[in-house]
Amino acid sequence: MSIKIIITGGTFGKEYNELTGQLFFKDTHLPEMLKLGRCTVDVSIETLLMIDSLEMNNEHRELICKKCNEAEEQQIIITHGTDTMPETASYLFEKIRNKTVVLTGAMIPYKFGSSDGLFNLGSALSFVQTLSNGVYVAMNGKYFYANKVRKNKKTGLFESI
Amino acid sequence: MSIKIIITGGTFGKEYNELTGQLFFKDTHLPEMLKLGRCTVDVSIETLLMIDSLEMNNEHRELICKKCNEAEEQQIIITHGTDTMPETASYLFEKIRNKTVVLTGAMIPYKFGSSDGLFNLGSALSFVQTLSNGVYVAMNGKYFYANKVRKNKKTGLFESI
Amino acid sequence: MSIKIIITGGTFGKEYNELTGQLFFKDTHLPEMLKLGRCTVDVSIETLLMIDSLEMNNEHRELICKKCNEAEEQQIIITHGTDTMPETASYLFEKIRNKTVVLTGAMIPYKFGSSDGLFNLGSALSFVQTLSNGVYVAMNGKYFYANKVRKNKKTGLFESI
Amino acid sequence: MSIKIIITGGTFGKEYNELTGQLFFKDTHLPEMLKLGRCTVDVSIETLLMIDSLEMNNEHRELICKKCNEAEEQQIIITHGTDTMPETASYLFEKIRNKTVVLTGAMIPYKFGSSDGLFNLGSALSFVQTLSNGVYVAMNGKYFYANKVRKNKKTGLFESI
Repeated sequence: MSIKIIITGGTFGKEYNELTGQLFFKDTHLPEMLKLGRCTVDVSIETLLMIDSLEMNNEHRELICKKCNEAEEQQIIITHGTDTMPETASYLFEKIRNKTVVLTGAMIPYKFGSSDGLFNLGSALSFVQTLSNGVYVAMNGKYFYANKVRKNKKTGLFESI
Repeated sequence: MSIKIIITGGTFGKEYNELTGQLFFKDTHLPEMLKLGRCTVDVSIETLLMIDSLEMNNEHRELICKKCNEAEEQQIIITHGTDTMPETASYLFEKIRNKTVVLTGAMIPYKFGSSDGLFNLGSALSFVQTLSNGVYVAMNGKYFYANKVRKNKKTGLFESI
Repeated sequence: MSIKIIITGGTFGKEYNELTGQLFFKDTHLPEMLKLGRCTVDVSIETLLMIDSLEMNNEHRELICKKCNEAEEQQIIITHGTDTMPETASYLFEKIRNKTVVLTGAMIPYKFGSSDGLFNLGSALSFVQTLSNGVYVAMNGKYFYANKVRKNKKTGLFESI
Repeated sequence: MSIKIIITGGTFGKEYNELTGQLFFKDTHLPEMLKLGRCTVDVSIETLLMIDSLEMNNEHRELICKKCNEAEEQQIIITHGTDTMPETASYLFEKIRNKTVVLTGAMIPYKFGSSDGLFNLGSALSFVQTLSNGVYVAMNGKYFYANKVRKNKKTGLFESI
């Protein structure tokens, strides 16, 4: 039994361009992070998008949805920017059946040394193996149902609604 | 609903003493790690032991067992050195009922910058919230049943038996 | 004999705002960096500016110049963004006499875990103690005379001219 | 003009063996550290020894001395464990002429994430380029004359005597 990980971008994968002083997307750091976690779970990683979640529109979401439904895997993790993670979760919630889908992300880029990304990845990988079919957000050590979660813009923390 | 975290030592909490060049146990880094993970799960942390797991004997295990059974919490995480983690899990397996207990640890001290500890903590916290009553080991992104796991001494990875 | 360190901003001191996803200036990290380096050199730190070096104009430079000339200390380090570090060095070169002034900076923010900042700070602190009176840039493990240095925009490295 | 760097071991180069839980010497991290510092100084690195400085005896010191005297380079850095760094410096002091030799080291292994090593390397590289002929210790942001320095065992800091 394998787990599919779909990369869509977000803070998770940002790096610092030392020539321009800007943050940018390079490759995903997922393989490096899984190695650091000594992860032996069988995963297949697909880089689908590399965008800020503020740029995520319903066309992108439809693409993600299609990938989830077409995947052979029963268990799917989606890395996603945190700003619109609840919106994407809601979108998928109504259109994916018979799979466990967990969205996760990070507040701090993995490359910045003190990131929450590794914690969230460990959490998402564990929830996706144990939660029943449905769409969830895994942040802050908790799981949230797709249509019952929001990001508190002031604290940056996810809350049940 | 709160989760109890019982600290027993192990690599997780080791630091480097720059005057002696030796590794030693200082305080637990759990609060710092949970903060880094932006964890909002309600936890209560108890430092019960601070020993290498090679020093762990059945008296220690009985003490851990007692703490688990007496705890008000239904969900318990135990941080533990990896060398004898399966032994302690087996010991607890036969003596704890009606609780979900997850043992976890780290191969590299958290303070050494490239530790698997944060990944494992995120994983253990998620498994303990979703697995049914029983005793488990959470390592390498997987969960293992207490009496069906061993550490491969050559690779350092945990395997089902 | 004390060394004065004048902070003007630059990449050195940038942090990541996890709520906005933007880089920003918080406090200087110099005290933390000196502590990490177990530095026992007597220094006095003054935060004069907190700006990108692209915003640095001659009014700012005049302010820096005034601070250098008024300082009791004979040896002065200036942390500065790398983009216009040579321009500021040239400006000071003509106006400061009887002091050793060393400008330094970083290509990667100190807080991002894999910064050149700590290396450059150790370098600047050592050069300022041993170079004769004059104005210098300390980058890439080398020192450069103030009016004979440029930053190569393609490589990000400093070169003699 | 090139600088020779002679590696002899010490805390600088220690790593953590996750299977045994012991610290050990692997390869030197000097090339990686110089890259992190964006160092463009021309250096040639030679790994001469890989020992704790407590194991350093006069035969080792004679070997180091021979390497220094035979080197084509005028400027030489020696990485060395801190415990007997003053002894080795004294030994070399009487036997090396017409060269600038700087010994440096670290209190915390480079691989442990919060090391003083990068700071000390930047410092030693700068001192070796600017100090006149002689043998020196570069630690704590300062340089010390070879026969006038000791390590304070209580604080871990280097002091003039």
